[in-house]
Amino acid sequence: MTAPMLESYVAGRWFAATDDGARIADAVTGETVVRVSSTGLDVPAMLDHARTVGGPALRELTFHQRAGLLKQLGLRLMADKDELYTLSHRTGATDRDSAVDIDGGFGTVLSYASKARRELPDDTVVLDGAVEPLGKRGTFAGQHLWTPMRGVAVQINAFNFPVWGFLEKLAPAFLAGVPTIVKPASQTAYLTEAVVRRIVESGLLPEGTVQLLSGSAAGVLDQLTGQDLVFFTGSAHTARKLRSTPSVVANSVRFNAEADSLNCSVLGPDATPDTPEFELFVKQLVTEMTVKAGQKCTAIRRALVPRELMDDVVEATRAKLAEVVIGAPGADGVTMGALASVDQRQEVLRAVKALRGVAELVAGDPDDFEVVGADKDRGAFLPPMLLRCDDLAAAEPHDVEAFGPVSTLLPYDGVAHAVELAARGQGSLVGSIVTHDEGVAREFVLGAAHQHGRILVLDRDDARENTGHGSPLPVLVHGGPGRAGGGEELGGIRGVLHHMQRTAVQASPDMLTAIGGRWVTGARRNDDGVHPFRKSLAVLRIGDSVTAGPRAVTLEDIEHFAEFTGDTFYAHMDEAAAAANPLFGGRVAHGYLIVSWAAGLFVDPDPGPVLANYGVDNLRFLTPVKPGEELTVTLTCKQISPRGGAEHGEVRWDAVVVNTEGSPVATYDVLTMVAKTWPPADGRQ
Amino acid sequence: MTAPMLESYVAGRWFAATDDGARIADAVTGETVVRVSSTGLDVPAMLDHARTVGGPALRELTFHQRAGLLKQLGLRLMADKDELYTLSHRTGATDRDSAVDIDGGFGTVLSYASKARRELPDDTVVLDGAVEPLGKRGTFAGQHLWTPMRGVAVQINAFNFPVWGFLEKLAPAFLAGVPTIVKPASQTAYLTEAVVRRIVESGLLPEGTVQLLSGSAAGVLDQLTGQDLVFFTGSAHTARKLRSTPSVVANSVRFNAEADSLNCSVLGPDATPDTPEFELFVKQLVTEMTVKAGQKCTAIRRALVPRELMDDVVEATRAKLAEVVIGAPGADGVTMGALASVDQRQEVLRAVKALRGVAELVAGDPDDFEVVGADKDRGAFLPPMLLRCDDLAAAEPHDVEAFGPVSTLLPYDGVAHAVELAARGQGSLVGSIVTHDEGVAREFVLGAAHQHGRILVLDRDDARENTGHGSPLPVLVHGGPGRAGGGEELGGIRGVLHHMQRTAVQASPDMLTAIGGRWVTGARRNDDGVHPFRKSLAVLRIGDSVTAGPRAVTLEDIEHFAEFTGDTFYAHMDEAAAAANPLFGGRVAHGYLIVSWAAGLFVDPDPGPVLANYGVDNLRFLTPVKPGEELTVTLTCKQISPRGGAEHGEVRWDAVVVNTEGSPVATYDVLTMVAKTWPPADGRQ
Repeated sequence: MTAPMLESYVAGRWFAATDDGARIADAVTGETVVRVSSTGLDVPAMLDHARTVGGPALRELTFHQRAGLLKQLGLRLMADKDELYTLSHRTGATDRDSAVDIDGGFGTVLSYASKARRELPDDTVVLDGAVEPLGKRGTFAGQHLWTPMRGVAVQINAFNFPVWGFLEKLAPAFLAGVPTIVKPASQTAYLTEAVVRRIVESGLLPEGTVQLLSGSAAGVLDQLTGQDLVFFTGSAHTARKLRSTPSVVANSVRFNAEADSLNCSVLGPDATPDTPEFELFVKQLVTEMTVKAGQKCTAIRRALVPRELMDDVVEATRAKLAEVVIGAPGADGVTMGALASVDQRQEVLRAVKALRGVAELVAGDPDDFEVVGADKDRGAFLPPMLLRCDDLAAAEPHDVEAFGPVSTLLPYDGVAHAVELAARGQGSLVGSIVTHDEGVAREFVLGAAHQHGRILVLDRDDARENTGHGSPLPVLVHGGPGRAGGGEELGGIRGVLHHMQRTAVQASPDMLTAIGGRWVTGARRNDDGVHPFRKSLAVLRIGDSVTAGPRAVTLEDIEHFAEFTGDTFYAHMDEAAAAANPLFGGRVAHGYLIVSWAAGLFVDPDPGPVLANYGVDNLRFLTPVKPGEELTVTLTCKQISPRGGAEHGEVRWDAVVVNTEGSPVATYDVLTMVAKTWPPADGRQ
Repeated sequence: MTAPMLESYVAGRWFAATDDGARIADAVTGETVVRVSSTGLDVPAMLDHARTVGGPALRELTFHQRAGLLKQLGLRLMADKDELYTLSHRTGATDRDSAVDIDGGFGTVLSYASKARRELPDDTVVLDGAVEPLGKRGTFAGQHLWTPMRGVAVQINAFNFPVWGFLEKLAPAFLAGVPTIVKPASQTAYLTEAVVRRIVESGLLPEGTVQLLSGSAAGVLDQLTGQDLVFFTGSAHTARKLRSTPSVVANSVRFNAEADSLNCSVLGPDATPDTPEFELFVKQLVTEMTVKAGQKCTAIRRALVPRELMDDVVEATRAKLAEVVIGAPGADGVTMGALASVDQRQEVLRAVKALRGVAELVAGDPDDFEVVGADKDRGAFLPPMLLRCDDLAAAEPHDVEAFGPVSTLLPYDGVAHAVELAARGQGSLVGSIVTHDEGVAREFVLGAAHQHGRILVLDRDDARENTGHGSPLPVLVHGGPGRAGGGEELGGIRGVLHHMQRTAVQASPDMLTAIGGRWVTGARRNDDGVHPFRKSLAVLRIGDSVTAGPRAVTLEDIEHFAEFTGDTFYAHMDEAAAAANPLFGGRVAHGYLIVSWAAGLFVDPDPGPVLANYGVDNLRFLTPVKPGEELTVTLTCKQISPRGGAEHGEVRWDAVVVNTEGSPVATYDVLTMVAKTWPPADGRQ
């Protein structure tokens, strides 16, 4: 029987190539799972579909709407994943491995959905940073903003995480408003296809926002423009080749590469065998060697150990590795599965051979190990292999990557030396240090950060909650300099912004307000006689304002406030002491008195659409207020953020309190919740 | 007489090549100014010097110390610039042109110095974003931080801005802690060299932080690692070539390109000849055509005009161009100088010829124009040339760049059409729209932002203060997608961070506090019985804290506060109305009462090192406080920022107010000024 041809999802239809394609073998049994080919696939149609159908549909939605769809998608995918686990076995993955890939992928989608609702506006534009005044008279200012690139994100993934690998790229692209073409590595593409098919069948994401290219991506990159992006995960060799594609270079296509690196984990000098950290180090090392059979671009390839602890570490790690049971995923007691293919096994063996030229194999024998529930020769099995290299001049441990269950122990003398050895990896996705000494942690992290995208500090305090050396998290950046590809993915909203263009807009305050949707100092205010607290979101407009006051501050007021609150700080109470203060030169009103009175001046007391003041941002006391001065406050509607699915939204108000001379004494933002309609539709007040 | 050989500054010494080199001609007279060559220059020594001498010296300094040096440098350079203006004439630049280049360059240095002191900490690490909780128990969290790359920034500059062009790259690199190699374009390298020589002679910047490579940069890029950076300004063609250098690709060298683009300026449909905007548009167009003889990568190449206003614009622009006086910089009445070289003139004429295939030349005749005070044939002179292209199918106006005093007028119908035409430039450094209509501005800016690094909105309101279409500003990003190179420079601190590596650190709160120098929720607090307000910066430590309270809130307190402040909002005063509020369900205390009382609880009233509370950040009211509840506040020293050159510094305190059950009701940061010593050295209190 001929194995089925894996399909691609192109311009709204499923497409199957009609040639023979390449056979993809089950990593455990060697049987053919599927055939893969992209022959005859209409690449221009795919790009066009993304650009003219998917992109525009996505850009119609606000960030919160996109997040809502991602949330529904994540929950839908989570609800029904047993079949995927079974399919995942065929890639060599145990259930523990699949949890990282499948649950990890779906969890990343959910994490992004939640992050976007909390941290992005319910809008299509992101404002970046503060308004920059560009002239002394206040008529000209700058505001940076982010808008989505208008092309397509071509996402080229590695074989080791067929689910997480594409979802961690798709989620931020989707949120940014950029459609995706998923290009999985052929070896495990059938698992990617199964998930993409569920996404398509869910009908949740707008058509054209996700397409699938099974098989070779040849020709795709040639057709990219300066609005398109490439997100690549895989070998440094392939990254190099793709990044040099003439059209990519000529059109300045954003190219983000995430390549395997020779990540290190350091045992702190304090972490002697009698400490919890020693055990944590050994346990983590064994985990990183065996999860996904060590096929992780974040795995520990170099374990740096204080010279005097080398023997202890060898012994403890060897003992722990002896407990590992290798075999068919799902088979009884199996704790480590197969590599993705027998070709991959050959690659690893070649690398191990190179390493053995300078290092001693201290645990694991590739020629002599047990396999449970599978044919050792047909499946791509290997034992975990620990090497020890005492020759610090040797280049191989810092240079040769065995992309499998392989790590090398290296001795170091002092933290500065560990930093130096870490840097010999020439750029890593991640490093870790296991120590309970804050000085050691600080020296290593600040010394090695420039070579790393992520550094984990593991000790007894975070042991229970720590997520592990090898696990990228959606809220933290993932990537690294140099050998690691020089890219950056994830990192919460940072990963969304990588799909957007930052633009500096220069204009008058009125124009900036109109463009960015946030009131800018100097822009028109509208004081139409209706107190803005009487306006629901249905009628409130940016710029609506109220000015109230003046109210004079007396010495009695200050003393009364001091007595009532207990804040008898000398600057308020003691004329001689206050006069000696370099900033005040005499008794002054409390800052909290100023803002309390300002609220008393601007508030509209009766029930109305303003439901609550839930906070204050950026409060600055600019000029001391002395007894006899009068306070006047102006409150201006600065930003309106209706909340999807709720009866209210957030309104940010610009508040300025001025003194008798009109100089600002306090500036701040007042944050309120305001009803969408008033009186509310449900009859509640 | 042989012209002098231009020197390079290499590894602490001035170096002159001994071969003939290339002759660089005066743009006005054609005489040889200098010879340029890098033959025999020791490139590896240069790189090594930057990496092992300049980088380490720079990283010893804090951001504020680096900023202090830049400020001194900027002032020193500003003080003595007449000679530079004279030299600048030889590049073809008028004094107006030189103001942009020379004063603009020195001003950028000063702007960066001031920005860094205000927005960066007096430290060597920049924290990025909020702490990310990574576990429910609060024992594991993430914090992103930026540390400087440990390599060298190779800065390859264009011929048109020999001073500004290198200083706008040098200033952010220096602040980041990254040493610079300046590689000027040979044509105007003598002016760059004159400024670098002043920098070296000032002795202000640490040795190894600035080197100069006069002549060919061949071989430099081959030796870069993943810690090095390239910042390139110049032609798209050269950008492509350099970006494809195998070592750059293989080592993921950060490569920032800023290339010429076909920038557009749009006349709004509202800007008819009777409006101030019409005149502003024409004036700006002529300015951009003539400043630097149009040799600006930000100049207006495409002027988009409502179809019905085309004739008016042609007429008005022609009239204004007729006033331009071309000739030797400094000669009487001259308002536009020469191009940088006769080769450059040939390039421009070739491009104009291509444009004339589809467009009509409506002003300026390259074969018939007057030149004042110079030989028209020996100097690289051209008249400003305005073209008009009514053929919207033609590709040339959007594709062929005449890097000189040349612009093409194109008609459009409706703002959406203008957006579409703007996008045909395939990525621009800058665009502008001249309109007084907020709807037009918003539609154009949000529609075209993805193709632009910067967009200027010009109208009667900002006309007087606006800095012009063609002027990048230090506080705004400079760069653009696609044809513009896909890079980003400047943008205030953003430009500094482009030289740093962002790293996610995962650790326990105690470890994060030790590494980042900012107290993290969940980390140790030290309540040693001494009130932290009694501690000067000399003894105060991160984590020092005080807990005060409880104090019970009564209904009388709420009513009293309402009466005193005037804040009689119904949620505080009216039980029935407050009960109907969806958030409160009964009368609650004022938020300002809570923070006022908290201050009353934690404050230490007597004169001491805490001089003032100058602000509050991120105040959030989390749970309503009802009568009968008790408040307790904990204040913890979060961040200490001594201010260089002052007797005090800023201290940020974490404040948490909890209710009777211990649930937080308010969280915020309190900002104070604290003396460095107490009692102060000068005897003042």
